[in-house]
Amino acid sequence: MTKTRMEAFSDGVIAILITIMVLELKAPLTHDWFALIPLIPVFLSYLMSFMYLGIYWNNHHHLLQAVKHVDGRILWANLHLLFWLSLIPFVTAWMGETHFAARPVALYGLVLLLAAVAYYILSRSLIVLHGRDSVLAGAIGRDLKGKASIAIYGMGIALSSVNSWLACALYVLVAVMWLIPDRRIEKTLVRLGS
Amino acid sequence: MTKTRMEAFSDGVIAILITIMVLELKAPLTHDWFALIPLIPVFLSYLMSFMYLGIYWNNHHHLLQAVKHVDGRILWANLHLLFWLSLIPFVTAWMGETHFAARPVALYGLVLLLAAVAYYILSRSLIVLHGRDSVLAGAIGRDLKGKASIAIYGMGIALSSVNSWLACALYVLVAVMWLIPDRRIEKTLVRLGS
Amino acid sequence: MTKTRMEAFSDGVIAILITIMVLELKAPLTHDWFALIPLIPVFLSYLMSFMYLGIYWNNHHHLLQAVKHVDGRILWANLHLLFWLSLIPFVTAWMGETHFAARPVALYGLVLLLAAVAYYILSRSLIVLHGRDSVLAGAIGRDLKGKASIAIYGMGIALSSVNSWLACALYVLVAVMWLIPDRRIEKTLVRLGS
Amino acid sequence: MTKTRMEAFSDGVIAILITIMVLELKAPLTHDWFALIPLIPVFLSYLMSFMYLGIYWNNHHHLLQAVKHVDGRILWANLHLLFWLSLIPFVTAWMGETHFAARPVALYGLVLLLAAVAYYILSRSLIVLHGRDSVLAGAIGRDLKGKASIAIYGMGIALSSVNSWLACALYVLVAVMWLIPDRRIEKTLVRLGS
Repeated sequence: MTKTRMEAFSDGVIAILITIMVLELKAPLTHDWFALIPLIPVFLSYLMSFMYLGIYWNNHHHLLQAVKHVDGRILWANLHLLFWLSLIPFVTAWMGETHFAARPVALYGLVLLLAAVAYYILSRSLIVLHGRDSVLAGAIGRDLKGKASIAIYGMGIALSSVNSWLACALYVLVAVMWLIPDRRIEKTLVRLGS
Repeated sequence: MTKTRMEAFSDGVIAILITIMVLELKAPLTHDWFALIPLIPVFLSYLMSFMYLGIYWNNHHHLLQAVKHVDGRILWANLHLLFWLSLIPFVTAWMGETHFAARPVALYGLVLLLAAVAYYILSRSLIVLHGRDSVLAGAIGRDLKGKASIAIYGMGIALSSVNSWLACALYVLVAVMWLIPDRRIEKTLVRLGS
Repeated sequence: MTKTRMEAFSDGVIAILITIMVLELKAPLTHDWFALIPLIPVFLSYLMSFMYLGIYWNNHHHLLQAVKHVDGRILWANLHLLFWLSLIPFVTAWMGETHFAARPVALYGLVLLLAAVAYYILSRSLIVLHGRDSVLAGAIGRDLKGKASIAIYGMGIALSSVNSWLACALYVLVAVMWLIPDRRIEKTLVRLGS
Repeated sequence: MTKTRMEAFSDGVIAILITIMVLELKAPLTHDWFALIPLIPVFLSYLMSFMYLGIYWNNHHHLLQAVKHVDGRILWANLHLLFWLSLIPFVTAWMGETHFAARPVALYGLVLLLAAVAYYILSRSLIVLHGRDSVLAGAIGRDLKGKASIAIYGMGIALSSVNSWLACALYVLVAVMWLIPDRRIEKTLVRLGS
């Protein structure tokens, strides 16, 4: 089975998710600058989720590059990832509209954590399919970055009831960690001359 | 006529349908956990429809793999399927917001049933186009799973006025039946070395 | 310049248009069958527009098949067509919610007419680019069907103030005329063995 | 890394942005022509943004044609451009609903300016990646048009508090300047016989 349509479908879903979030930024009814102030937390939560969805698209793109073929199991592991990503607009809206209150921030972190677990399952399933000696397995390696992200999300969720801004800072930390795109796969591919 | 654009268009429509359903999950205005309780039925109906649309995308993907060419008739059979799928966000919202009341559950089942009939018509039209001796015809075979699904949806619709949860359990049963992806086509393709 | 991205972009826009219209079908707050009655005109207008957008996608698909290359002029002729198609969700909603009142039906016809003119301009521009002796020019021919559609839309608009259902019947007539997909291009391509 | 998925993702995002803006055109509740009058500014702002997003898609298409490969840096430069474009529906709605008031017109211009800067960064990053002697570098040249656009947006923002229609006229001027598609890349590609 080729990976082309799975890539196209994932691109479609992520493109829609990243775009419909902007519908939460509702145009104010008045035209003064002050009318924009209540939108600031909504904008900030949009910005964070835009970055996260951009990171997921980016890493998905990198991951799939080294993939040679997929099967039904992979299609479902991928849909599982897309499911958690599809909840991002909802938690983004809740977090933005409640001005980063403790519980919405915790739920946001939980969705990020579950998406990270789903990504981990997807990459493991791809390694199982391609073999432990494959380019893909070598490129992903022990995936310390993925495991660290999950741990930091967990800390963020735990801390959200103490200080929700601290939790957000931890989420931003993970984002920054990934903003530097995942060069492992690219490097391995280049090294092997593929 | 190549199948590429028909695949791309179907991927696009299904990706959008699976994603806009999340817009029904409206962010609560307060930030306590209790505010999420009214969203539970909406979330459950979203989860079921996400699985169904995922199954349709998955099986569509499998079906089209064995397809060599399409014609105008196939394009319309495909649009007919997409039409019934496009009503899923509407019936999902009605079912979720009425807390799985009898009539919305029956209508949900009816849309699933009509989508299954449309899928059946699409696969038959493809067999007619490719010939009874084609790989595709061999791979689809008598399509017992497709026919059984239609029968179970019918039972679900009939039972919805007695007990809507029982009807939903039947819909979930069909979903689980299909979650195991349709390996017939994949196996036949592998066997024939194509 | 290749036509691939123009096809992909058009597929994307038409897929979104055909799908977001369903957002007008708002789930009723009560769960009895009567609650669906006010939705019937909205559903009928959705059905008509789904068919029209399906026809446009279909014919666009057929038209582009015979195309070898595009230029900046063609990209704009295509965007011009997409602009008029993008207004279909708006006129569909107005027509459905006003129960097919005279003026919304006239505006619906006007948007269809302008889309048909835009399609005509696109196909003429493609002929100019490919030459009068090209396969494409032979396949489109004098485009009687396209011209007849424009005339019938005009009649529909004129009649809408007399009887809006008669106008709708004319729009349905054009749709049925096109439902039989445009085999001219397909036939010519087959005849020329390309 | 191939550019295919980056093109597909960008096409998806721009197709969605250009389409969801039409959701701001809400169907009037009454069916007389006068009911459309309050929609005129919303329609005009939609028309301008449709043209702008069309121009960006068009130029993005032209730019990527001459590109041979991309890297992680380019993916982020591209997402940066998509971020500013994603705010266009919001500023379009605010500008339309406030009947082109001074501050919304200034914010609209600011988003256009930041999108133009992001496009400039993207094209510069592509030149750095491909080398100063590449076809791409030759085709983009000194990018006077890009720099002039940024200057005119700046003038528009400054003038918006004096006369918002004048500012809009300047934005339209930039659009017209770009409507003539960017033939530099096409010409250079043709000249070099690639």
